[in-house]
Amino acid sequence: MASDDEKPLLRDLLSPSSQNDQKIDPKRRRYRRCRSAPLAEFLPGEIGTNVDGSLPNSESSLSNINPSFRMVAIYLILYLIIGAVCFYLVQDQIKGDKIDRVLDSVYFCIVTMTTVGYGDLVPNSVASKLLACAFVFSGMVLIGLMVSKGVDYLVEKQEILLIKALHMNRKTGSSEIQKELEDNKVHYKCLVTMALFVALVVVGTLFLTQVEKLDLVDAFYCVCSTITTLGYGDKSFSTKAGRVFAIFWILTSTVCLAQFLCYIAELNTESRQKKLVKFVLTKRMTNVDLEAADVDENGIVGAAEFVIYKLKEMGKINQEDISLLLAEFEYLDVDQSGTLSTSDIGLAQSCQTGP
Amino acid sequence: MASDDEKPLLRDLLSPSSQNDQKIDPKRRRYRRCRSAPLAEFLPGEIGTNVDGSLPNSESSLSNINPSFRMVAIYLILYLIIGAVCFYLVQDQIKGDKIDRVLDSVYFCIVTMTTVGYGDLVPNSVASKLLACAFVFSGMVLIGLMVSKGVDYLVEKQEILLIKALHMNRKTGSSEIQKELEDNKVHYKCLVTMALFVALVVVGTLFLTQVEKLDLVDAFYCVCSTITTLGYGDKSFSTKAGRVFAIFWILTSTVCLAQFLCYIAELNTESRQKKLVKFVLTKRMTNVDLEAADVDENGIVGAAEFVIYKLKEMGKINQEDISLLLAEFEYLDVDQSGTLSTSDIGLAQSCQTGP
Repeated sequence: MASDDEKPLLRDLLSPSSQNDQKIDPKRRRYRRCRSAPLAEFLPGEIGTNVDGSLPNSESSLSNINPSFRMVAIYLILYLIIGAVCFYLVQDQIKGDKIDRVLDSVYFCIVTMTTVGYGDLVPNSVASKLLACAFVFSGMVLIGLMVSKGVDYLVEKQEILLIKALHMNRKTGSSEIQKELEDNKVHYKCLVTMALFVALVVVGTLFLTQVEKLDLVDAFYCVCSTITTLGYGDKSFSTKAGRVFAIFWILTSTVCLAQFLCYIAELNTESRQKKLVKFVLTKRMTNVDLEAADVDENGIVGAAEFVIYKLKEMGKINQEDISLLLAEFEYLDVDQSGTLSTSDIGLAQSCQTGP
Repeated sequence: MASDDEKPLLRDLLSPSSQNDQKIDPKRRRYRRCRSAPLAEFLPGEIGTNVDGSLPNSESSLSNINPSFRMVAIYLILYLIIGAVCFYLVQDQIKGDKIDRVLDSVYFCIVTMTTVGYGDLVPNSVASKLLACAFVFSGMVLIGLMVSKGVDYLVEKQEILLIKALHMNRKTGSSEIQKELEDNKVHYKCLVTMALFVALVVVGTLFLTQVEKLDLVDAFYCVCSTITTLGYGDKSFSTKAGRVFAIFWILTSTVCLAQFLCYIAELNTESRQKKLVKFVLTKRMTNVDLEAADVDENGIVGAAEFVIYKLKEMGKINQEDISLLLAEFEYLDVDQSGTLSTSDIGLAQSCQTGP
């Protein structure tokens, strides 16, 4: 058995779609087919989450550990309420172009948390200055949370709509959309955020020309200065309508740009990762490699040995992962046979207390 | 052979240090020991790079793909030279508190690229406004590159010094320092950047009180406003000495805070990843799992089968990785034996053109 049997094992681990890409002995495949079902059911969640190979995705299998999109939204609302109340209370200690007490508090809170900091409203007392310091740090953390958690969730939803729209004319099932999405996840995320970013720039520029009566260059300059959180402050929102718009627009556009840059970085990482995978795959397996992978000195390397050796070369797994798993394997392998059987599991678990 | 032989294979993949943690039949181990040498030589680079499980680290095996620290430094210098020259040329179109033509150009360039944007100097013509827009976007990308590439390299060097200092009294070899570093890499990175961050805040505050003659609260407020890139602009660097200091201090401190926040996020991800690994490791192996991992239906699961199954549960590897490697394995396995031997390698490579 064994060495020869490892091959079908790995073959069966393949999802049905990728299985079709392989030239597999049809007889063997038919025989194995039914066995892959329980595994396939177990896997989709994980396949989906780790397609770009990045670490944070792997957490979805333990979603209780990961603060959800809803949590981030709640934090944001809480932050804005507390911020608005605080700045409302110290309003007399803030100098600048004031328009409306409540509106200015929220506007100042947004301008501070996004680190735009125009300077059209500035704290003018010890208390208000320290308050601004506290709010800018917590705001940065919150924006970071929004970029890493909240927006990702929203963009993922848009992605599916985008792909459905792109495939409108072709009849595609949800599994095909799923596959398309896995293959180009980051690519689509980039597209969605870029489209949103362009829309926000256009809307912001038009608004500033129409409502704040800036000329086109000034409006674009103010948009760029705001979106990047530069905020020189020579051009800012000085009308009531402008500040209402600013509250929503500044938050959305700064987060959108940050997210867009993150996705570009991710795309770049993914493309480098793909190059590395290609490099490892196309690298000639020399006799030295074979010797290194083949520890039992029988001159042959099984499929599982090969997969583990190459995964290490790709840097996807490391020594520590294998050590940990092997320790667990040895613990479970009570009869020291080098393999796990139902009797091993029973023996190992009889040592533990029942559930 | 085979199934039973996989176990020593994986055991030998263990680095010597972790090997000592395992209870291994001494005879077997002595026999295997010498065989692990070539592999161990091949691996250290990769083990080191991927210890936090994050993707970007895996690229070091192909360092030519990855822009190095030196590249980032060159980009930064080029950016500053081009920026200073551009803003020097449009200096008459910039209004505000001017002190020195050359100094102001560099200062304005730094204030713009870091998105601090005090507003003490603001572009006042179409050309200078569009120039500022171009420089703030490219500056953001450059800061992002510095945070993801440049600083990481510097912090890693500091880490080693820190650990050496901490272990001064204990006699530790470089291999032990290496291990200590692998286990708590992100933890030490956080410590190093936090120490630098605190130092930068203290230095900045002292400088502003001494040179710019601000009172303590104003100085701290200006430091916070600058470090977070808020830059209201009511307090900024208005003396010649202040602007010289600002050029170095603003760049260092904003990048340091950004890096510090990144490391905290990484620490958080790592701790969640560790929880996931622990969860997968301590999760009872049920008969259903055993059945899922054991595809050959012989009722036993080999060590390699177990490792691959658990790695998938941890989300470290996915279906696609295995599919790709398996396709490569089948390509190399010319004689369809389900194992790779020297003869397979020879046959597979004779189909390709020689080197």
